[in-house]
Amino acid sequence: MDVEKYVYGLLDDAKAAGMKLASMDAKSRESLLLRIADLIDAGSPAIVRANSPDMESAKSKMTKSELDRLILTPERVKAIASDVRAVAALPDPLKKEESWSVPSGLRIRKVSVPFGVIGVVYENRPNVTIDIASLCIKSGNACLLRGSASALNSNRALVAAIAPALVGAGLGGAIALVDTPDRAAVDVMMKARGRLDLLIPRGGAGLIKHTVENSRVPVIETGTGNCHVFVDESADLEMAERIVINSKTQRPSVCNAEEKLLVHRKIAKAFIPVMAAALREKGVEIRGCPETLKLAPYAKPATEEDWPKEYLDLIIAIKVVADVNEAIAHINKYNSKHTDAIITQNAKNAELFTRNVDAAVVMVNASTRFTDGGQFGFGAEVGISTQKLHARGPMGLNELTTYKYIVKGNGQVRA
Amino acid sequence: MDVEKYVYGLLDDAKAAGMKLASMDAKSRESLLLRIADLIDAGSPAIVRANSPDMESAKSKMTKSELDRLILTPERVKAIASDVRAVAALPDPLKKEESWSVPSGLRIRKVSVPFGVIGVVYENRPNVTIDIASLCIKSGNACLLRGSASALNSNRALVAAIAPALVGAGLGGAIALVDTPDRAAVDVMMKARGRLDLLIPRGGAGLIKHTVENSRVPVIETGTGNCHVFVDESADLEMAERIVINSKTQRPSVCNAEEKLLVHRKIAKAFIPVMAAALREKGVEIRGCPETLKLAPYAKPATEEDWPKEYLDLIIAIKVVADVNEAIAHINKYNSKHTDAIITQNAKNAELFTRNVDAAVVMVNASTRFTDGGQFGFGAEVGISTQKLHARGPMGLNELTTYKYIVKGNGQVRA
Repeated sequence: MDVEKYVYGLLDDAKAAGMKLASMDAKSRESLLLRIADLIDAGSPAIVRANSPDMESAKSKMTKSELDRLILTPERVKAIASDVRAVAALPDPLKKEESWSVPSGLRIRKVSVPFGVIGVVYENRPNVTIDIASLCIKSGNACLLRGSASALNSNRALVAAIAPALVGAGLGGAIALVDTPDRAAVDVMMKARGRLDLLIPRGGAGLIKHTVENSRVPVIETGTGNCHVFVDESADLEMAERIVINSKTQRPSVCNAEEKLLVHRKIAKAFIPVMAAALREKGVEIRGCPETLKLAPYAKPATEEDWPKEYLDLIIAIKVVADVNEAIAHINKYNSKHTDAIITQNAKNAELFTRNVDAAVVMVNASTRFTDGGQFGFGAEVGISTQKLHARGPMGLNELTTYKYIVKGNGQVRA
Repeated sequence: MDVEKYVYGLLDDAKAAGMKLASMDAKSRESLLLRIADLIDAGSPAIVRANSPDMESAKSKMTKSELDRLILTPERVKAIASDVRAVAALPDPLKKEESWSVPSGLRIRKVSVPFGVIGVVYENRPNVTIDIASLCIKSGNACLLRGSASALNSNRALVAAIAPALVGAGLGGAIALVDTPDRAAVDVMMKARGRLDLLIPRGGAGLIKHTVENSRVPVIETGTGNCHVFVDESADLEMAERIVINSKTQRPSVCNAEEKLLVHRKIAKAFIPVMAAALREKGVEIRGCPETLKLAPYAKPATEEDWPKEYLDLIIAIKVVADVNEAIAHINKYNSKHTDAIITQNAKNAELFTRNVDAAVVMVNASTRFTDGGQFGFGAEVGISTQKLHARGPMGLNELTTYKYIVKGNGQVRA
């Protein structure tokens, strides 16, 4: 199989279908999504059946939580269909428009438009296939989906289930699955400048780094989260403990989980022993700076390698800092520009921290786990951007659009 | 000289100074710009003097119009200072803010923030040095300026002239010139991920392609313009002629100049002979499709290589098309996503064209030369983006900002 020819073929078909999709009105895109939801419900038995060989081959290779991400049950398929209906009901992201007139007499309109064809490379959760497809349809984009090879049967069944709705609307090829486990397909996507308008890598840090460093297609980098919580001198220590436990342990494998705890020196003695004991009770391994080690003797010494590291596991590193300024400097040196939080009752320090920490989301007195499209009120999310270009933080429908200028005159020429 | 060490040093100093600049209020940034304008006026004799060795070495190597871009006269320096005052007076791009509350009780604010450090690689016009510097200061960004080696003495004098204002504000290093003709400096900038937040290449297509394909730093691609004018069946032919002459000949060396003319077959016989004669009279070389050649026998045959080409010169290629749909298909195949125009009296065709042509700017009945930050009312421009990520078309102050979310709670954790 010639992977390049295959992927380019999918992209060219997607581009043609995407142009039609882009010119559909909001009502038609909404109806299309409702038909897709019905087809997923109707196709549920076949989709669940297609998931079994994926589960079968994964059984010996994956952890329990990885298997849990991969499995499709009738209830999960129902939830997928219902998520599509929720996306259908969201406001139209292509409706945004600003306009103004200029002295030459031209009327300038800045209107939201889709990107065209969006490529997404993602992990082994088959529900992501339909999440991305529905967000793309709602925003008028075609998409090329490259899920994990271990979910290929499930993804194939999902895309096949919705195909009749697309073909019926004259949009065959608008949602295309890269139906090969060959990893070379990702490299073809990365060099498909001109055919692919945007590439979004999701998943492991390795994939994201590889894509960012090698892609010739514009990339939105997502989801690396070395998130910090700084407990200030004036913090409500009970609140701080609750937030740290939630940020660290509620779901340690996700990008908005806390990885680092910074503690103001003045409260270290009162806070660290209690906090460390509570973390330990939740099964969290503690690594600490020298001062932390004195207050939590069972902690392991943290090394320089710990500070930039995203553990995605029940591990935390704790560091005592002199004040909010040292906390900010440490965070700006080591964070991944995802989410960092301060726990404080001091409005001035909250202001200093939120202004100077360079991250997509800066929290005051709340868990880092709130960095999420759903929690932000976006209805759905494509991923969490950790770059500054175009989109930052949770990416919803608006972030899947760009804009163009439509300029109307009556014969103007430049003097 | 260790270029990597040198450029990294400039970037690290710029980042530190940029953080201070970002936290300055609008009034202080404005005053800083006014001080800079005064320093440019005061430094005018030294700046003009520094320009002579650049002009001297360029004399034998550059065309007249290139020399004209390079020269600094007292009048030009005065204009540069006055442009800085104009930027100072523009609205603050860091003032934008949206906010909302979500059911968890969190208050979410989405606020405009600077990128941090912006790198710009540009052509041999020394005024660009101060244009970029003033736009960056106004938007709270530090910048690393890499102008043409042939303008190095002029650029050095300009940056030296404004330095006292920056140092006086504790912002030494915020506006840094890469003071070496070594081209390796650009390669260092391209790999300075984490140190440089955004890289904007301006100038030749070769530089832009090289940067886009090799940079690990997020890039905004600017300024390649293969701009089309399509003259529809219903066009006012006199208006069409006026617009084509203006688009093509008013300033042929710039990116918003017309390069291609598409003509509806039904009016080709009436329009092409007149249009071609008018272009010829202005010294424009005409290349044509076979149908055009019959109507303008002095034209040269256009080859497949002509259609994607940006001439930046008094050359135009003309093609007869069946209708607006063929025009759109041709443009979407060959344009550089900069600016394309339709000349028509038919509202439906105007709608079809503006909706379906994939370009940053789509004009109706106006010259392509209007794609310009000043003409759009932005007050100033950093360049014209031909990509879809983040910014499209003329980039003003707003496009030099990104955003962050500041989320305030009172102890919220996720259930």
